[in-house]
Amino acid sequence: MRYDVNKPIGVLDSGVGGLTVARELMRQLPHEQIIYVGDTLRCPYGPRPEEEIRQFTWEMIDYLVGQDVKLIVIACNTATAVVLKEARQRLTIPVIGVIDPGARAAVKVTRSKRIGVIGTKMTVESNSYEKALRHVEGQVVVESLACPPFVPLVESSQTTGAYVERVVANTLRPLLSYDMDTLILGCTHYPLLADVIGRVIGPDVQLISSGDETALEVAALLDYNGIAAGNDFIPEHVYHATGDTRSFERIATDWLNQPIQAKRLVLGTEGTT
Amino acid sequence: MRYDVNKPIGVLDSGVGGLTVARELMRQLPHEQIIYVGDTLRCPYGPRPEEEIRQFTWEMIDYLVGQDVKLIVIACNTATAVVLKEARQRLTIPVIGVIDPGARAAVKVTRSKRIGVIGTKMTVESNSYEKALRHVEGQVVVESLACPPFVPLVESSQTTGAYVERVVANTLRPLLSYDMDTLILGCTHYPLLADVIGRVIGPDVQLISSGDETALEVAALLDYNGIAAGNDFIPEHVYHATGDTRSFERIATDWLNQPIQAKRLVLGTEGTT
Repeated sequence: MRYDVNKPIGVLDSGVGGLTVARELMRQLPHEQIIYVGDTLRCPYGPRPEEEIRQFTWEMIDYLVGQDVKLIVIACNTATAVVLKEARQRLTIPVIGVIDPGARAAVKVTRSKRIGVIGTKMTVESNSYEKALRHVEGQVVVESLACPPFVPLVESSQTTGAYVERVVANTLRPLLSYDMDTLILGCTHYPLLADVIGRVIGPDVQLISSGDETALEVAALLDYNGIAAGNDFIPEHVYHATGDTRSFERIATDWLNQPIQAKRLVLGTEGTT
Repeated sequence: MRYDVNKPIGVLDSGVGGLTVARELMRQLPHEQIIYVGDTLRCPYGPRPEEEIRQFTWEMIDYLVGQDVKLIVIACNTATAVVLKEARQRLTIPVIGVIDPGARAAVKVTRSKRIGVIGTKMTVESNSYEKALRHVEGQVVVESLACPPFVPLVESSQTTGAYVERVVANTLRPLLSYDMDTLILGCTHYPLLADVIGRVIGPDVQLISSGDETALEVAALLDYNGIAAGNDFIPEHVYHATGDTRSFERIATDWLNQPIQAKRLVLGTEGTT
């Protein structure tokens, strides 16, 4: 039997942030069908114990495997840090996280080998990007900064205007004296603030969006594994949220710039966490 | 027995152009050992019949497989167009060409979906980039231009100065009225002219160097296949040329900015072609 190359790609996230990765996948790979799972009910994962993050992420992975996806993207920095390695070991389909693609792209573009990373408190404290960068290139100098105000801004659809500019400028101030040529947007929410961040940080610093780079690596892996969808295939994407579907639909419709309908998905022993 | 992740990567080209890809591999993957084969004796491949290109390329592949490489990069547009697909089918190790990574990166960065491609006459006439771009994204508009003067400039180490600026400006003139936001440097020699090309073509057009993007995909594939070299490994690269080693060494020393020694390699039935 011929392998069905038009099988969907599974994309999972602790909430809505992974939609920026899904958006890039749709743009770079317009013939691939996506099944998105956002664990909005139990978001954010950041403050949770590792064992809980592992359990919740595996519930999403198991759901997607049950949907017969051909590849899984862990579009969440926290879940990538905790589960990527074991997911790759256990699953027979390719599994891609958001950290390594961003780190590789930063190593590609940097000339000064001085790289900045911004992310959530959890991501910055985990040193995941620093580890990934050093794994590729031991000589890089990395400066990381947690930007707690950014996710709430994005989640409330505030991505332009004077107030946003002020918050972003204030938050990034500690990085302005750091001499870097590359800045990794190490949170899947941040690409929606990329214009403002770019203005604050200046034109000499190249911004790396993990979502863009992850989509590129997905494209390469589909090709090298011979499992890219046919380019006459017209995909219909599917969106699942474990929490309130209406607020998910509002943000998804806004970010993806098209009307989105989401299905409610029940995972694990809902209500007990 | 544990797989030896420190096995070398094989890089082959019809001549010296692939050294720009090797240079990017060394920069992005400083712990990977490279065995380079340049078929300088029978360069250029462009004007040769397809069957001859196939035979010569397979002679290099067979040599590299005999050296127990873990991955092969076909760092030559012509050889990629002719042999990549069958090499991937026949070999059990990953084989990477330079065309698809460049095309994917262009699709990633373009917003207007209007992309330019410059390359040798052979590459432009083969429509390889256009096919690769359309395979990913059917909606792109592609304008291609052959730039015959560029390779001789680079081979004679002329990459800066008023004369070079004038030749590049004259050659690229037909593209200047084409409204594009991305230009693929579709020849492995061209990255050495990137500064001049960038000035001529203007700051609003993003240049894509296939070599940079190929190195990035090599990094991703090594990672996903679990075969990246240990980051305490200090590689010693090996260079082979089928033609005069002294002129190869001169160019390689210049381009790689370090003293290079090359070994003479005898392939096929030398002298009969």
